[in-house]
Amino acid sequence: MRQAHHQISVPTPGRGMYEITQEIRLWVRSSGVHSGMLTVFMRHTSASLMIQENADPSVQADLERFLARLVPDGDSIFQHRQEGKDDMAAHVRTALTQTHLSIPVVDGAPVLGTWQGIFVYEHRYESRSRNVMLHLIGE
Amino acid sequence: MRQAHHQISVPTPGRGMYEITQEIRLWVRSSGVHSGMLTVFMRHTSASLMIQENADPSVQADLERFLARLVPDGDSIFQHRQEGKDDMAAHVRTALTQTHLSIPVVDGAPVLGTWQGIFVYEHRYESRSRNVMLHLIGE
Amino acid sequence: MRQAHHQISVPTPGRGMYEITQEIRLWVRSSGVHSGMLTVFMRHTSASLMIQENADPSVQADLERFLARLVPDGDSIFQHRQEGKDDMAAHVRTALTQTHLSIPVVDGAPVLGTWQGIFVYEHRYESRSRNVMLHLIGE
Repeated sequence: MRQAHHQISVPTPGRGMYEITQEIRLWVRSSGVHSGMLTVFMRHTSASLMIQENADPSVQADLERFLARLVPDGDSIFQHRQEGKDDMAAHVRTALTQTHLSIPVVDGAPVLGTWQGIFVYEHRYESRSRNVMLHLIGE
Repeated sequence: MRQAHHQISVPTPGRGMYEITQEIRLWVRSSGVHSGMLTVFMRHTSASLMIQENADPSVQADLERFLARLVPDGDSIFQHRQEGKDDMAAHVRTALTQTHLSIPVVDGAPVLGTWQGIFVYEHRYESRSRNVMLHLIGE
Repeated sequence: MRQAHHQISVPTPGRGMYEITQEIRLWVRSSGVHSGMLTVFMRHTSASLMIQENADPSVQADLERFLARLVPDGDSIFQHRQEGKDDMAAHVRTALTQTHLSIPVVDGAPVLGTWQGIFVYEHRYESRSRNVMLHLIGE
């Protein structure tokens, strides 16, 4: 049994979903761990992680429209506004989605279903770079 | 230290919650891992996983009523409608709940609290079968 | 490779967020596992876990205002009311947040970002004590 850690930096030029499935698949393959458990961890509180359909881009657009309506930017109930009207909305969106993902690994690859992709969900307007830590344990 | 993988197929005859606690407990017990970490992973993007109270069935009915109101089927903001009005609503419900669960294992069983059950939450109307991957690592 | 389990009991005097980052950091340090994976698991269905900003307390207040509006206590669609109007709302809030967290450990500490804290989110009004199981695997 062995393990590996690897931090990746994901550029996020504005609010939206950025797929990182391929980058993660390549790292898992290169790690030498054939069978085990992969964890993906977002080191921020205004961006999150999501597993979603990666075939039809309208799914991502619809998700964004839904979240924008559910968590209005600059909502009058928000007091935390130092960094703009997307600031607190980003924290709420993060709370309602995922900060970490755990995915079993079989035959050298995460066991994602046919339509499942791994995404960084950037909730802030401005261009950023997000630190995501990967961990793999297995044999 | 050792690990085990096992895929189960869960029949889901329509939208709703289907408890899989007992099936998972039996597999953990049969795995020979007495102490460790269990991960449950849903290989789909229109069904999810949830740990919830399994004593009073009204909890499940209330959760469903809440989600049906929060994420209206056929919402006019949804463009992804190929498979019907429950299609995009199912993706949003999945995004707001869980695609994976991690549960410590002690004395040969997941350390669920007294009222905690593990459920597959089917978000589509039609009858399906959902692939759920189990992974256990420990000793 | 080795592992450790540890259950902590978190007093929660009413609805709100209670930070447990420091208690978890100390246990990780004392465990002797320098590099690996930490899992935090809430053994209840009316309290949850959350990683959120721990610098500005207005983030926690805003999150609470948002959830209180999204999931009204005593909502007329709820039938599960045995324990009061916060009962079913607490189950829904738990379903929309997290029952478990997985955080990689590097150099003897969870790899939390600068502003990330680990919180127990109590969703019931009354004072309680919540059981949280910690698990660490690594070397």
